[in-house]
Amino acid sequence: MTALTITGIEGIPEIRPGDTVGELLAAAAAAQGLPLETADCLVVTQKVVSKAEGRLVPLAHDDFAGRRALIEAEAARVLRRRDELMITETAHGFVCANAGVDLSNVDDGVAALLPKDGDTSAHRIRNAVKASAGVDVAVVVSDTFGRAWRHGLTDVAIGVAGLAAVLNLRGERDSRGQELRVTEIALADEVAGAAELVMGKARGIPAALLRGLDPSWFRDGSVRELVRPASEDLFR
Amino acid sequence: MTALTITGIEGIPEIRPGDTVGELLAAAAAAQGLPLETADCLVVTQKVVSKAEGRLVPLAHDDFAGRRALIEAEAARVLRRRDELMITETAHGFVCANAGVDLSNVDDGVAALLPKDGDTSAHRIRNAVKASAGVDVAVVVSDTFGRAWRHGLTDVAIGVAGLAAVLNLRGERDSRGQELRVTEIALADEVAGAAELVMGKARGIPAALLRGLDPSWFRDGSVRELVRPASEDLFR
Repeated sequence: MTALTITGIEGIPEIRPGDTVGELLAAAAAAQGLPLETADCLVVTQKVVSKAEGRLVPLAHDDFAGRRALIEAEAARVLRRRDELMITETAHGFVCANAGVDLSNVDDGVAALLPKDGDTSAHRIRNAVKASAGVDVAVVVSDTFGRAWRHGLTDVAIGVAGLAAVLNLRGERDSRGQELRVTEIALADEVAGAAELVMGKARGIPAALLRGLDPSWFRDGSVRELVRPASEDLFR
Repeated sequence: MTALTITGIEGIPEIRPGDTVGELLAAAAAAQGLPLETADCLVVTQKVVSKAEGRLVPLAHDDFAGRRALIEAEAARVLRRRDELMITETAHGFVCANAGVDLSNVDDGVAALLPKDGDTSAHRIRNAVKASAGVDVAVVVSDTFGRAWRHGLTDVAIGVAGLAAVLNLRGERDSRGQELRVTEIALADEVAGAAELVMGKARGIPAALLRGLDPSWFRDGSVRELVRPASEDLFR
């Protein structure tokens, strides 16, 4: 029986620049009666990571010109504008609103920027968990992005450590022995979205633990597997 | 503690036109030691639903002209073409490859089309579960679609019954009391993607059970909440 359990990690203290997120998560999970185990997967929201890494800049809530300037500075390219919304490509190659500059769940007068390198952030958390709890976990750093074509936002991966970001099923056969045409599954994005189901923006739970992912998916992955270059993208 | 359990439903027999999918799923879950309960959510892949609804057409594996004609007939609009790939808008308003025409996990010489109305399909399953097991479950019919901007496919909702498709958090406040700017979460898409983590194309598990979703999310939803009209879409 294939079963996966997803649990919100509660009791995480307010994160400050310099905090060791992996250690705090391992402690919070243990305090909750769920000590981390090898082959667990932690999903951690961008906000926690950005705060720990000091990716915060002062920005008054009503300073729209300052906000626009900040977004333009963070964006590698502005793809579309509509009213106050800018759809941007970031330096990482992510396409998202407002270059990922975020004003919710941070102190008033402060904006949070995306981590500089989400994979490095994820590896830092993975290493801190190993150092403090002695187990090898996968880590996905997540953020909430919009999509083309469909209403509503979903959480997706912006950094990965210890997990395949994309599963390549090329050459595998379906249950009838035909070669699969659908070959690449965005595993880390599905993991991030699944974790969102127990976190919730309003509940203030910034991390989740997934237990029961297929052991073969734990390898040295990178969020770069998920980035479709503009040159290959039919919709940019 | 917010915990969600996702279990693949195994032992589902080969589906034939006219089968009552809800009854078969309830029986398979019970046989697995997981009798369905009110406030469970079932995710069922398009393939199972299309087979039960007889949405199958003969198509030889190497009949590329026939395949192209079938896709063009199913598509409301072809948005982009590249080699054998067509990105299409379907009559439902979904944007996906090849109008959802699917050749894997069906008999050789047969193609499966999308259900005519995914919400109706989901309601049919929900009603059959109610009739056979006496419980109110939510149902999401899922399919595997590509995205703009990012590599890899994810499972998304193509039909919904008894669950909000989009959660509107407008006006809710974050953990610091600031009004949330991120207001619409694509719940049914995240549910579909989470279920994919226990199904897997190659494993041939066509349905999953999610237990532990927030009770407030169970309402009369529709996949139409997830469809962004072309007129509002900056990327079509």
